[in-house]
Amino acid sequence: MASELSSQVLKGDHRAVAKAISIVEAGGEPSRKLIQELYPHTGKAFTIGVTGPTGTGKSTLVDKMVGEYRERGCSVGVLAIDPSSAFTGGALLGDRVRMMDHSLEKKVYIRSMASRGDLGGLARAARNTMRVLDAAGMDVVIVETVGAGQTEVQIASTVDATIVVLMPQLGDEVQAFKAGFAEIGDLFVINKSDIVNPSKTIYNIASGLQERDGWRPPVLKTVAVKGTGVPAVVDAIEKFQKHLDTGSLREKRLSKRIRSELVDAAFSDFYHETVTRLGDQKEFDSLVGRVVKRELDPETAASRLVGIISKIGEKA
Amino acid sequence: MASELSSQVLKGDHRAVAKAISIVEAGGEPSRKLIQELYPHTGKAFTIGVTGPTGTGKSTLVDKMVGEYRERGCSVGVLAIDPSSAFTGGALLGDRVRMMDHSLEKKVYIRSMASRGDLGGLARAARNTMRVLDAAGMDVVIVETVGAGQTEVQIASTVDATIVVLMPQLGDEVQAFKAGFAEIGDLFVINKSDIVNPSKTIYNIASGLQERDGWRPPVLKTVAVKGTGVPAVVDAIEKFQKHLDTGSLREKRLSKRIRSELVDAAFSDFYHETVTRLGDQKEFDSLVGRVVKRELDPETAASRLVGIISKIGEKA
Repeated sequence: MASELSSQVLKGDHRAVAKAISIVEAGGEPSRKLIQELYPHTGKAFTIGVTGPTGTGKSTLVDKMVGEYRERGCSVGVLAIDPSSAFTGGALLGDRVRMMDHSLEKKVYIRSMASRGDLGGLARAARNTMRVLDAAGMDVVIVETVGAGQTEVQIASTVDATIVVLMPQLGDEVQAFKAGFAEIGDLFVINKSDIVNPSKTIYNIASGLQERDGWRPPVLKTVAVKGTGVPAVVDAIEKFQKHLDTGSLREKRLSKRIRSELVDAAFSDFYHETVTRLGDQKEFDSLVGRVVKRELDPETAASRLVGIISKIGEKA
Repeated sequence: MASELSSQVLKGDHRAVAKAISIVEAGGEPSRKLIQELYPHTGKAFTIGVTGPTGTGKSTLVDKMVGEYRERGCSVGVLAIDPSSAFTGGALLGDRVRMMDHSLEKKVYIRSMASRGDLGGLARAARNTMRVLDAAGMDVVIVETVGAGQTEVQIASTVDATIVVLMPQLGDEVQAFKAGFAEIGDLFVINKSDIVNPSKTIYNIASGLQERDGWRPPVLKTVAVKGTGVPAVVDAIEKFQKHLDTGSLREKRLSKRIRSELVDAAFSDFYHETVTRLGDQKEFDSLVGRVVKRELDPETAASRLVGIISKIGEKA
């Protein structure tokens, strides 16, 4: 039943994995079919999200984490979500080149994905890319994101564990990040801790964190560029991993993630299927015409359009 | 049939206008009812969007435009969309204070609105605020936005004319802005043209612009803080306004805007109505459970959920 491509992915073939990821990135029917074939073979990989402001050294940390996991005998897949922004796109590519040393190894797979306008589409592509890497036999899959808060939060809702990377003395930025990031981090890393004493930053972060599901997120310090503190980060992740496995917490979290994934995917599919057909609906044209002529107000017209949408959706 | 509040808004009462805007900003049923009452009385105001990067002096330009319109005997409503970002929020408020000189006048109404996470909700609130100001008898309604591209593009799709404000020697930023902003600007203003010679910037911008619907967007230079060039900007807007009125172009554009507004509003309403009811669906719980157990893949589950969604929507 499985296609040739799926079989090759399951064997961990790098070229097949590359092709499969391109397919899930493009989405649509081919992606759907592929995921249908691969999904039963997933669930072995532990997925980790690494996020935080630009300049905190996330890529270097991920690079060193890959090395540490390799030393522990684990295979690692990395998905780096690059912001499409013209302002920061360049800097990121430089970091990527360094990481490529690892990608020559068979047990490491590294892939970048551009973050475009469509946030929902990106989250879906990222989830399915993690599934491809999982099916290909990776023990650990790391997803790295940069920048705008919304992407981070959405990606965090797709992984088993989220690491938030900060650095000492970010000042106002720390405040801003704490607001949105305190809730998504299972582990906080203060990188570049050799620049200034990180104690104050660690205190500020730690005091804003709360225990959740019996886990109090630790705040660790690293100097990723020298590898300092990286084994402790991997230790902490493994400890969290064990914590998740107790009392079916991992399944509880997975269930919550699947719930929101299905809602997002279904509404997105519903929207795309329905909006295309809306173009042929004379009823819709007539609504628009009446609003333009001010015979009908836009709120009433929108309510009626909800009815039209439901009817089209029902027929689909 | 009209409520007391609507009657007061139609008379141009400032307190009623303030109350009405708070209602449409909050959204939901009260907003719906109010817009139903006010909408037949709209369509007289000419709506202008003013956008561009931070620091180009948009608020000052808007401030001077208000003055110029007042001299020409027009009443003016201003809606300033403040980014919620902690990084830039402060700067904007300073500019706002200056503008308040105008707000003591009866013929001027100025309002700020915070830009929150929900982009669709913001666009809807902005559209309906413009309708309140239009119904209140404002001849001109100006909407000012700052920052992230997506908001700008969405707000631009709600006004009759969009002004993009830049400044000389923005360098890379100009390039980035040209990419997204060339298509939305009906008029380009190079403000702060006394700092450096703006000729090169004007040339760069103008050479990237194309004629659209028989209109070639002009590129004007201003020194808004001194008022220099502002009457020419208002002249250009009035010229564009005349251009829109020829050959039913304004109606054509309005029709396109109403189309996308109705689609956005209807899908958003459909989503909110349906997602709430989804919580009670045992069918949905069972889908989630099977995906968690890997008996069913998420793509197939999402397809089935589309069916459930359509059924719920149909019953609504």
